[in-house]
Amino acid sequence: MIEDKTPQRTSIGQLGEFGLIDHLTQHFEITQESTVKGIGDDAAILDFKDKKTVVSTDLLIEGVHFDLAYMPLKHLGYKAVVVNVSDICAMNAKPTHITVSVAVSNRFPLEALEELFAGITLAAKEYKVDVIGGDTTSSQKGLILSITAFGEADQEEIVYRNGAKESNLLVVTGDLGAAYMGLQVLEREKQVFQVNPNSQPDLDGYAYLIERQLRPEARKDVRTLLYALEIKPTSMIDISDGLSSEIMHLCKQSGVGCNLYEDKLPLDPQFISVCEEFNIDSTTIALNGGEDYELLFTIAMEDFDKIKGNPNFTIIGHMVQESEGIHLVTRANTKIPLKARGWNALQEE
Amino acid sequence: MIEDKTPQRTSIGQLGEFGLIDHLTQHFEITQESTVKGIGDDAAILDFKDKKTVVSTDLLIEGVHFDLAYMPLKHLGYKAVVVNVSDICAMNAKPTHITVSVAVSNRFPLEALEELFAGITLAAKEYKVDVIGGDTTSSQKGLILSITAFGEADQEEIVYRNGAKESNLLVVTGDLGAAYMGLQVLEREKQVFQVNPNSQPDLDGYAYLIERQLRPEARKDVRTLLYALEIKPTSMIDISDGLSSEIMHLCKQSGVGCNLYEDKLPLDPQFISVCEEFNIDSTTIALNGGEDYELLFTIAMEDFDKIKGNPNFTIIGHMVQESEGIHLVTRANTKIPLKARGWNALQEE
Repeated sequence: MIEDKTPQRTSIGQLGEFGLIDHLTQHFEITQESTVKGIGDDAAILDFKDKKTVVSTDLLIEGVHFDLAYMPLKHLGYKAVVVNVSDICAMNAKPTHITVSVAVSNRFPLEALEELFAGITLAAKEYKVDVIGGDTTSSQKGLILSITAFGEADQEEIVYRNGAKESNLLVVTGDLGAAYMGLQVLEREKQVFQVNPNSQPDLDGYAYLIERQLRPEARKDVRTLLYALEIKPTSMIDISDGLSSEIMHLCKQSGVGCNLYEDKLPLDPQFISVCEEFNIDSTTIALNGGEDYELLFTIAMEDFDKIKGNPNFTIIGHMVQESEGIHLVTRANTKIPLKARGWNALQEE
Repeated sequence: MIEDKTPQRTSIGQLGEFGLIDHLTQHFEITQESTVKGIGDDAAILDFKDKKTVVSTDLLIEGVHFDLAYMPLKHLGYKAVVVNVSDICAMNAKPTHITVSVAVSNRFPLEALEELFAGITLAAKEYKVDVIGGDTTSSQKGLILSITAFGEADQEEIVYRNGAKESNLLVVTGDLGAAYMGLQVLEREKQVFQVNPNSQPDLDGYAYLIERQLRPEARKDVRTLLYALEIKPTSMIDISDGLSSEIMHLCKQSGVGCNLYEDKLPLDPQFISVCEEFNIDSTTIALNGGEDYELLFTIAMEDFDKIKGNPNFTIIGHMVQESEGIHLVTRANTKIPLKARGWNALQEE
């Protein structure tokens, strides 16, 4: 038998707006007790009882935040949820709900939207967040995604950016820079493909980096880990723009300075070897790469014993008086002022 | 002295993302007691105490939902808030907060964004909603706005779309169709302008229609009016797509039919005369025009005496058994099945 290899392409217009919404949202399940009413009315109704409501929102634009040349739509849907859930985790809150709005130009067939929503559904299931609303419309160009994430927390659990104190320890989860190098590998393969469309991508040896770029995870587990260790961070932020930039935010909002130690930065072996291959300084990328979605937080010195040696956390510095400034202490033990360049700035170089 | 008539154009890039956000959000004031933390952290924190949280979201795209040729940016900002607040009102809830995300291409100078945010600020003040978050980014083409609105209500106050019962009265606020005819007037002037760019728009005699299109208001007052009358609607929806389409939603979700009376439709005299001028059937536009942002609801027959003669409300029909279907009873007393065409369909004709 000969298989029909032509992918099916159904025009979105065939379903109409309401038909499309029904079709795309049919796989969403309601699992949160706090969801009183989900999709299907003028608005959703949530009941957080005595908890506080935590809200964050993001707008993702094709050609600005993602490139569909190497970002499969299912991964994009997954990542869009993760990015927002990560902001809720950065408040030390529990993610509970999301709304998802999508605008697409008519070059996207229904099957493409199904892939996107499959990724969103998978992430919603993985992070146990209910999809409670959204909007579906057409765009003049490309794909646009707007996600608002909700979470809940008791007042005393919530951690802001502005609570870091002098002599607090600076702690980061996971490792740094891998997502950015994953993007470099994908960009290189895209360029090879543009020169020779018959080439097959050579991604052996880059699996971890590419996964960090295409399928990052939000550190929903950190809240539970810290709770078990009886640690409440004094300040917290998630790493979306890059470590340097996030340290600057914590310092500025808390009114403190910081000494960051180059030799303490947690780097994956694959990350180090690919930085060498690309002839890029690994510290620069770890500081400015962005999109790691790890959590960066400060804790009281007294909590040192609770966290030391824990494989989930790395102490990378400590907070100092604001007047002392924000510095990187290099391996050669020289102090240089930290600059926040962010991954956008890196890309422009 | 000779005045410099060149409008100031400041590039958005000069401020940087964080500078831009600080600049644009500086006029937002926090007035709601339920706002624990607004803009400035990874997420906002809200405290609705024993109230339920009501959430609605919309994505507005230039060239799809609005045309900057005749929609001033300040009006657009105002209207974008109104559209979302209207959804909260349609749940019989009190609007409390919004998040605002904006993407713009670099053809927009800072001054254009300031105009947009001036409209958003004005609406936030008018409707007493706190702006508690958002996102600002670049787009590949045009202006994109994503707004999420929040409200609060006691469980027993909330009105869904699905509670209409047989023999309930169908009631609408304000008048119908004016926003759509306002759009027609503006479209006509745009075409005149394209032929002769020196022409001045001739908008005398269309003020009400144009205001309904460019500066609609959400019926935040209806909740208070109904409360004072001791009426709780059995179902409710706001009129964004058009009366017919919204009646269909109420009927479908409630499992009832409806008889709608043509001679009861509330029409403004200016609307009627401009329909004649354009040689368009006013009933067709009142049914399918859309963007009126009035509220449509059903009440128990027993509440008739409380509402009759009230200038804020018009009884336009009554609900019947589902098997009887959804009909328009014309002035000539013939029954014709109601069709939902919506304003998009109208525009395509």
